[in-house]
Amino acid sequence: MRELITLGTASQVPTRTRNHNGYFLRWDDEGFLFDPGEGTQRQMTLAGVAATDLTRLCVSHFHGDHCFGLPGVFSRLALDQVEHSVHCHFPGSGAPLFDRLCWMWPEYRRRILREEPAFGERTLLADAPRSRLGRLEAIRLSHGVDSYGYRLTEPDGRRMLPERLAALGVRGPRISELQRLGRVEADRREVTLEEVSEHRPGQVFAFVMDTRVCQGVYDLAANADMLVIESTFLTSEAALAAEHGHMTARQAATVARDSGVRTLVLTHFSQRYTDPAEFEREAREVFDGELYVAEDLMRIPVPKRAIG
Amino acid sequence: MRELITLGTASQVPTRTRNHNGYFLRWDDEGFLFDPGEGTQRQMTLAGVAATDLTRLCVSHFHGDHCFGLPGVFSRLALDQVEHSVHCHFPGSGAPLFDRLCWMWPEYRRRILREEPAFGERTLLADAPRSRLGRLEAIRLSHGVDSYGYRLTEPDGRRMLPERLAALGVRGPRISELQRLGRVEADRREVTLEEVSEHRPGQVFAFVMDTRVCQGVYDLAANADMLVIESTFLTSEAALAAEHGHMTARQAATVARDSGVRTLVLTHFSQRYTDPAEFEREAREVFDGELYVAEDLMRIPVPKRAIG
Repeated sequence: MRELITLGTASQVPTRTRNHNGYFLRWDDEGFLFDPGEGTQRQMTLAGVAATDLTRLCVSHFHGDHCFGLPGVFSRLALDQVEHSVHCHFPGSGAPLFDRLCWMWPEYRRRILREEPAFGERTLLADAPRSRLGRLEAIRLSHGVDSYGYRLTEPDGRRMLPERLAALGVRGPRISELQRLGRVEADRREVTLEEVSEHRPGQVFAFVMDTRVCQGVYDLAANADMLVIESTFLTSEAALAAEHGHMTARQAATVARDSGVRTLVLTHFSQRYTDPAEFEREAREVFDGELYVAEDLMRIPVPKRAIG
Repeated sequence: MRELITLGTASQVPTRTRNHNGYFLRWDDEGFLFDPGEGTQRQMTLAGVAATDLTRLCVSHFHGDHCFGLPGVFSRLALDQVEHSVHCHFPGSGAPLFDRLCWMWPEYRRRILREEPAFGERTLLADAPRSRLGRLEAIRLSHGVDSYGYRLTEPDGRRMLPERLAALGVRGPRISELQRLGRVEADRREVTLEEVSEHRPGQVFAFVMDTRVCQGVYDLAANADMLVIESTFLTSEAALAAEHGHMTARQAATVARDSGVRTLVLTHFSQRYTDPAEFEREAREVFDGELYVAEDLMRIPVPKRAIG
């Protein structure tokens, strides 16, 4: 299953209805936690996400609303005796801050894998072409302090066509043999994978938080099936957004439109706004794909893979 | 106004209905925050407590559920540009942990006053006999790690008796003069404070968290008008309570009864229990004063001063 759970959707200041940031991405057997702000531990409980579901942790930058949940999450991993390792990705300049917040009993700390702390403009963090995890990259953003977005790209694959398989007499265990080897004998002739399947594009998930519009935003968002993106402000506060290194809903939606994004999730809203419909209205002026103005504890399915 | 606001009432693990610890005591012009666990910043918002209301911060010990809210609270003090200093009290052995969690922009840090970090068995933290703050003491508890309770004792005073004042002809500004000087001339004779007032005992507030029953618990609770006390377990788990340095509801209520406590607030409940009525039932077997089984965001008035 692939779904996003918005644990918290506020920006700097939490509100009665919005906790600080926190985004959990279930991606088959992997569980990504992005930017755990204060209270993430409890939001996970409210969302039915267990500590043991967590396999990777990605921090965009070390402003408090994106990382003060780390001590609680780490303590909880230890308390719940999670056996597997958790891979942690964050900007290298934040390593002292990460260590400051990595608070748990020492014998547990070896399960917390600090990975690749030195990020460049575009850094490959994981590359597992044979698994559905695929490539995980960090891409530099523009926010005053070091800030990075994350992009997850599943490898392209083949989608089997049942009617072609049947027509050429490939059945049962022969199908997985064909998928594995690329060719198989059936009804006394060789059948190739290409004959009985079509191209299946891998899925792309992108996480963009906190930044002004810059090249990195576009590099992250390109052809994303799902884009989770900060839209702290509305156009009426565009000057403020520029000054503080944030985006407006219209800017975020424009990036999504120009990047061929399929499902757009706006989040990280300033506490000054009380009506989420304003963000929707602004985004709709430019973007006509699937749109979510995030609320806390939403579950948003990653859309089915595109055709072709 | 003097009231307690229970910001969070869980113990180690937060639940759907209980946030991690956090207790705000409004005491005239002072605002005490005790044991801010993760999420306290947002609970303050939900309770209508502003960062600027906070003047003193008291941490009993440095287990995460009693301190992971500190970075958020400190950041919020800075963000909201609170002008006054905040006095911080905590066990001396926790100073490195306090500093680790004291996270804010440096120019603000001078407003955070780390006070008297070396605690003994019973340590006087503040003594303001002329103000209604009175004495603030830390008293050692027993919990495996260094843990201290806090006791606030208002100085005794005099309660003016309007009918005596009228009978002896003391009126208007003469009344405050009498209170200030202890004697005043009225209708050509000297009137003393004792003639027109009665003894008014100062109020006592005590905060007891986390500990097994020990002498310190009794020293804290003695004659308290309000006692906030951990009762993590029920008697059915008394062995577990002893092992982990906690109390049962029955033990906490017994301390309250034997100490002449007027208002008892039980809190810090293990997540294993779902029915608060069980705590009430157990406490009621021994304690017949005012009893609160705390829930999040309760507002509990400190009872009016005792007579005599």
